[in-house]
Amino acid sequence: MTLSFNATPSSRFLRACARLPVDATPVWFMRQAGRYLPQYRAIRTKYSLLEITRRPEVAAEVTLQPVEALGVDAAILFADILLPVEPMGLRLEFVPGKGPVIHEPVRTAADVERLRVPDPRADLGHVLETVRLVRRALEGRDVALIGFAGAPFTVASYMVEGGPSRHYRTTKQMMYAAPDAWNALMTKLADTLAAYLTAQAEAGAQAVQLFDSWVGALSLPDYRRYVLPYSQRVLKAVEATGVPVIHFGTGTAHLLEAMREAGGTVIGVDWREPLDRAHARLGDGVALQGNLDPIALFAPPEVLREQVKDVLRRAPRVGHIFNLGHGLLPDTPVEAVRAVVEMVHEFTADYTDDAEK
Amino acid sequence: MTLSFNATPSSRFLRACARLPVDATPVWFMRQAGRYLPQYRAIRTKYSLLEITRRPEVAAEVTLQPVEALGVDAAILFADILLPVEPMGLRLEFVPGKGPVIHEPVRTAADVERLRVPDPRADLGHVLETVRLVRRALEGRDVALIGFAGAPFTVASYMVEGGPSRHYRTTKQMMYAAPDAWNALMTKLADTLAAYLTAQAEAGAQAVQLFDSWVGALSLPDYRRYVLPYSQRVLKAVEATGVPVIHFGTGTAHLLEAMREAGGTVIGVDWREPLDRAHARLGDGVALQGNLDPIALFAPPEVLREQVKDVLRRAPRVGHIFNLGHGLLPDTPVEAVRAVVEMVHEFTADYTDDAEK
Repeated sequence: MTLSFNATPSSRFLRACARLPVDATPVWFMRQAGRYLPQYRAIRTKYSLLEITRRPEVAAEVTLQPVEALGVDAAILFADILLPVEPMGLRLEFVPGKGPVIHEPVRTAADVERLRVPDPRADLGHVLETVRLVRRALEGRDVALIGFAGAPFTVASYMVEGGPSRHYRTTKQMMYAAPDAWNALMTKLADTLAAYLTAQAEAGAQAVQLFDSWVGALSLPDYRRYVLPYSQRVLKAVEATGVPVIHFGTGTAHLLEAMREAGGTVIGVDWREPLDRAHARLGDGVALQGNLDPIALFAPPEVLREQVKDVLRRAPRVGHIFNLGHGLLPDTPVEAVRAVVEMVHEFTADYTDDAEK
Repeated sequence: MTLSFNATPSSRFLRACARLPVDATPVWFMRQAGRYLPQYRAIRTKYSLLEITRRPEVAAEVTLQPVEALGVDAAILFADILLPVEPMGLRLEFVPGKGPVIHEPVRTAADVERLRVPDPRADLGHVLETVRLVRRALEGRDVALIGFAGAPFTVASYMVEGGPSRHYRTTKQMMYAAPDAWNALMTKLADTLAAYLTAQAEAGAQAVQLFDSWVGALSLPDYRRYVLPYSQRVLKAVEATGVPVIHFGTGTAHLLEAMREAGGTVIGVDWREPLDRAHARLGDGVALQGNLDPIALFAPPEVLREQVKDVLRRAPRVGHIFNLGHGLLPDTPVEAVRAVVEMVHEFTADYTDDAEK
C-alpha cells in the first residue's frame, strides 16, 4: 500500500490539512453532491440514493458534479454514513419525507451480539471502487478526494433509535442502563468504521472525514465516558495510514477540546462557535474546518459576502479549510454556492505572500 | 407597587438567586407541571392546554400540582410562551402531534406593522389572576412562584416560521434580508414581553424566567447583532422591578458570555456545558441554574444518583439552582423526579454550615 500523503503535499486542500501555507484557502461543502444541483436531481429521477451508492460509475459521476459546477478544492465521495450497517446485518431503507429507517433497531446485548464486523473489501467493495474511479478522473488536477464514515456514536444512534431522533433517549438509556451492551456495540462499530476508512484511504481517498454529526446532544462527561474512547480507536487507526482525518460534529461548542483529544488532523466546527475562539481553545497543533451557517447561502449577496469575510477574518491563515458548519440544504441556490467558492479564493489570494513574510 | 425582593430574601430559591448561602440547594424543574404527572393528565381530559391557561383556578391548580407531588422549592406558572402572540393579533392553535401552529406567519414589514403591543392587564389578565391565586395558595410556605415569558428571538421564530422549526431558515432569512422588518418585530416583541413580565412581577411572581429556548441555533456574531439588544431591552426592564430574572437557553455553550451581557440575575445552562466551566466563564457575579440531562431521569437509580452528584460537584455552592438542562419529557417516571428532589436536598444539606466556615 502506498499513500501519497507522506511527501509534502502540493494540493491546496492537503496543504491546509497539514497546516502548511497555501496560495488561497481551500473550500468544499458538506453535501456538495446533492439535491440543490439540477444535475444531481436528474440522476435521482433514475436511481434511488442507495442505488447510486451501489453503482460505482454513477456514484463517481455524482461525486464529480460539484467539482465541475463549483470549482471546489476537494470532492467528497458520494455515499451515506449508514452504508456499513447493512453488512453489519441490519436492513436499511430511505423513506421519502422521513429519512433513514433501520427496521430492527439494536436494543439488547443479544441484538449487538448478532452484528457482524464486515470486511470492507468484500462487503463495501462498490464504495472502494467509486473511490478508485474518482481518483482516476481527478488525475492531474489539484482537487483532493475525501472519503468518509459516520462516527461510532452517530451511527449507533441510528441503529438504536431506528432512525433520526430528537432526544436520543433510547440511545442514552442504553448507555446508562446497559453499559456492557453499549460497549460491545461501540467496539464493533469502531472496528467496522476504522477498517472501512482505512480501506477508503488504501483505495485512494486522500483524506477522510469522520462525521459525528449528532454527538452535540451529549453532555461533556457523557461524551468522555461513553463516546471518546471509541472515536479515538477509529481516529488512531485511520491516522496510522498517513491520510489526514477531519473530525466533525455539530452543536459541539462544549466538546471541542474533548474531540481534539479523541483525535483528528482537522477539527470541523459548526457555525455556532466562532473560529477565532475555536482556534484559541485548540491551539496551533490542529487545523480547523468551517464554519459558515448554511442559511447564509439564502441571504442577499452583500450579507453573504460579509458572513464569508467574517469567517475568514476569524480563521487562522494557515491550517484552515473553508466549509459550511453543516451540510448544504436541498434548495440552496447554486449561484450562491458558486459565489462562496469565488469569494473564498478571492479574499485569500494573498495568503502565500503573507505567510512567507 | 410593592415587591418583596428588596428585603433580604428568606426563601431558599430566592436566596440562591441572590447568591446568598442556603440551607440546601433549591430545586425545581422546567415543565414540572405537565404530562408526566397523572394528576395533570386527569385535568387534560377535561381541558385543552389553552383552555387551562384561560381559567385561572385550573391553571393555579396545575401550577401547584408538582409542589405537592415533588416537594420542589419553586412553582412555575402554568402558561405557554406563545400566549402573548394572540393579543398581538395572531391566531394560535396547538395541533396534537405537531405542536403550536400560527396560522398567518409574520413574514413582511406589513405583517409586522399590523402587530399590536398588548396591554398585559387587559389582554392577559387571566395569567396575572393565576399568579395572584398561586401566591395566595403558597402563603406561609417556603416555595417561590416563578413567572415566565419567551424571549424575543424564540417567540419571533414561531411567529415567522408558523410553528416549530429545525433550521430556522425563514427567521434567519428575515434577519439577513429584511433587517428593518426584523428590528420592528423584535422591538414590538421586546416591549410586549417586558410589559408582560413586569405585570407578572407586580401580580406577585417572585422571580421570572426568560426562555430563549431556540437561540442556540444562531452563531455568536448573529446573536450579538440580531438578538442581544432586544433580549437586553426585556431583561433591563424586568430587572428594574427588583425580581430576579433567569435567562435561559439550550445549546448555548457558545453564547454564555453574550447572554450574560444581555442580562439576567441567573443564567440557565442546558446539560451540555458543565457548570464548573460555565462558572469559570461567567464568574461569581451571576447565579447559575441547571443542568441535569432530562434523559438521566430514565436511567437506573444508581446512574441517576451519580449524575445528580456530578452536577452538584461542578456547581458553585452559593448561587446555584438545581434544574434540568431543559424540560421534563412527557413520559418521565414521577418517582425519578421525586428522587432527584430528595437527592439534591440530601447531598447539599450541609451547605449553610459550610458557607459560614
